[in-house]
Amino acid sequence: MTVIFNEIELRTKSYCDIINITDSVQKIIQESNIKNGIVNIHIPGSTGAISTTEYEPGLVKNDIEEFLESIIPYDVNYKHHRTWGDHNGAGHLRSFLVKTSQTFPFRNKKLLLGTWEQIIFCEFDEKSRHRELTLTIIGE
Amino acid sequence: MTVIFNEIELRTKSYCDIINITDSVQKIIQESNIKNGIVNIHIPGSTGAISTTEYEPGLVKNDIEEFLESIIPYDVNYKHHRTWGDHNGAGHLRSFLVKTSQTFPFRNKKLLLGTWEQIIFCEFDEKSRHRELTLTIIGE
Amino acid sequence: MTVIFNEIELRTKSYCDIINITDSVQKIIQESNIKNGIVNIHIPGSTGAISTTEYEPGLVKNDIEEFLESIIPYDVNYKHHRTWGDHNGAGHLRSFLVKTSQTFPFRNKKLLLGTWEQIIFCEFDEKSRHRELTLTIIGE
Repeated sequence: MTVIFNEIELRTKSYCDIINITDSVQKIIQESNIKNGIVNIHIPGSTGAISTTEYEPGLVKNDIEEFLESIIPYDVNYKHHRTWGDHNGAGHLRSFLVKTSQTFPFRNKKLLLGTWEQIIFCEFDEKSRHRELTLTIIGE
Repeated sequence: MTVIFNEIELRTKSYCDIINITDSVQKIIQESNIKNGIVNIHIPGSTGAISTTEYEPGLVKNDIEEFLESIIPYDVNYKHHRTWGDHNGAGHLRSFLVKTSQTFPFRNKKLLLGTWEQIIFCEFDEKSRHRELTLTIIGE
Repeated sequence: MTVIFNEIELRTKSYCDIINITDSVQKIIQESNIKNGIVNIHIPGSTGAISTTEYEPGLVKNDIEEFLESIIPYDVNYKHHRTWGDHNGAGHLRSFLVKTSQTFPFRNKKLLLGTWEQIIFCEFDEKSRHRELTLTIIGE
């Protein structure tokens, strides 16, 4: 049983940029020396999130953003904005809700995902960001 | 330290069918050769989710469905519907939100859950489905 | 590779009390004999949750509560209330949504969190509670 750390670097766009990271995660597992186990994907930050979706434009360019905007709109004067003078309160709330990490299984070096299930990083910040996701692989 | 995979098969009903899988998870842990560790439960798919709740009819037949319907209603013309001609956009959004995996601890082969906390699979698809959940047990 | 269990005890206040547990988690990792791995944090219960946020008053005293109140208000006659005669239906729904566990990586005994990312326990019950969170550390 071994622990391996690795990273995925991303350049994101502001406001609900949803990026398919499945192939990057799969590649890191493939190139590791671990055959069976789990991978924890974590975004060290408070305005991003990890989740899954079928990665097609209707969902990732429209439906997810419209849903999140309906419950956590960007154009609100959040109390957080008074603390620092920035304007990413919605980004923080979305990150709190969708969460900064998720853990997935893999077997024979293959992620055990559904046919249409893709792992996504969600950029919720108001600014374009350089992101480094942490992958922690545990297995044997 | 060992990794063990196992599955739970379910026949679900459409539209927010919430199924208590706690006993099935506990049985698989009990029959494994791992005493202490964690179990990752994952639904390979994009219209299901794993979470927990007190499993009583008021919550699982009414409150959870009414809450989800209030923020992600089924009867909306989601952009996803135009992509494939299906009608499960709400199912995808609910799965994105509640998420396709969750990880729990167990000790002495017993899940460390709260008194009323039950592990649930949430079917959010518009159709009845045959589901195979993946359990990944890591421990010693 | 080893599995270690530990606990964090909390005395919480009712209705959306958000407590920063980052230092407690870091201390337990520091004092363990595991250098690299993951920590699963779980609240055994059905009216609490684990997530992350920037821990500043605007977010944790105002924005998060106002957001959750907008989608899962406390003052609703949930069906759950008829089952037991209690009034914590909103607490159950918030726990189902935000979820009772989350898993984080650590390396060289240090949690790999973002600069502003803090791990929080969310008390959603209508009553002040004594809580015992379960930490499961797996690594080497």
